[in-house]
Amino acid sequence: MTRQFHHEIIEPIQNRWSPRAFSTQAVNDQDILALMEAARYAPSCFNEQPWRFIIARQADTLEKARGALTDKNRRWADKAPVLIVVLARKNFEKNNEPNRWHTFDAGTAWGFLALEAQQRGLITHAMGGFSPEAVHKAFSVNDEYTIVTIIAVGYMGDSDELPEDLREKERPGTRKSLTELVLAGL
Amino acid sequence: MTRQFHHEIIEPIQNRWSPRAFSTQAVNDQDILALMEAARYAPSCFNEQPWRFIIARQADTLEKARGALTDKNRRWADKAPVLIVVLARKNFEKNNEPNRWHTFDAGTAWGFLALEAQQRGLITHAMGGFSPEAVHKAFSVNDEYTIVTIIAVGYMGDSDELPEDLREKERPGTRKSLTELVLAGL
Repeated sequence: MTRQFHHEIIEPIQNRWSPRAFSTQAVNDQDILALMEAARYAPSCFNEQPWRFIIARQADTLEKARGALTDKNRRWADKAPVLIVVLARKNFEKNNEPNRWHTFDAGTAWGFLALEAQQRGLITHAMGGFSPEAVHKAFSVNDEYTIVTIIAVGYMGDSDELPEDLREKERPGTRKSLTELVLAGL
Repeated sequence: MTRQFHHEIIEPIQNRWSPRAFSTQAVNDQDILALMEAARYAPSCFNEQPWRFIIARQADTLEKARGALTDKNRRWADKAPVLIVVLARKNFEKNNEPNRWHTFDAGTAWGFLALEAQQRGLITHAMGGFSPEAVHKAFSVNDEYTIVTIIAVGYMGDSDELPEDLREKERPGTRKSLTELVLAGL
């Protein structure tokens, strides 16, 4: 581990990172449902809960979701037994006005999902490298949603099986210093 | 509690909600630093860490941050001893191209912060009701950032001191059903 913590923060936050070395081991229904329950209890503006999910874990839907990923991501993400597409509703349901927090709130839900996964011994990796158009077509996504990310969920596999360039990156990422992130008030 | 959990999810997620009944009790430095450490370890696209924070907890900065809130929020948030402005860097640092995940990633960092606060017995409440222009002016925020939210942080106070309309709403919010949130793959 290259990370050093200066404060006792909750363990799933300390231990979570974004591996690429997935095994093909299946994830059971109860774990998937628990991830959804965790995501669901995120806070959101006006409690709108703008997050929506498409869970791909059957052969046909997995094929569709994988087909939307960049080749660079497919090199490792094709092994993941579950891909979850995260969508965010662009407008408020209460008045149909643009919700400028729709992706922000979806990010909170994803964070809760990632920590619950960590707690259950699962690994997660959110990807920006995919074609929103391909997701749109493959799953007939309504235009009322922003297609935000595709998350790989599964179990840790063997990092020796990764392509060499990815093997070198297979470790917890470092972070900027607090002084870079806190613009005032430290 | 109006919430019923069907899965054993991590406790800070189960127990967190967004109260308005803040006490004026101060938050110590170590707790503030721990919240920042938790936020800092959120995942982000290319590990860009687009989140930035302005921590208002001295009389002068608190005054500035409070001045940006809507009157509706000031009725309760003026008691909170700490207000944290959350910003998100619009463009990637690596290439200065627009980062379409900048607020999404900031939402994940906010989620981690909220759970760490919960673990430490603190309460948090993110607000959308504020003037970005007022924050911009008060803190000379650079245009490279989106001003996303202002978070109240502190300790639970006495809900009887809330205005009557807010007292009625002072309880954990309910959530949509899984079938509403999961568009496919359940």
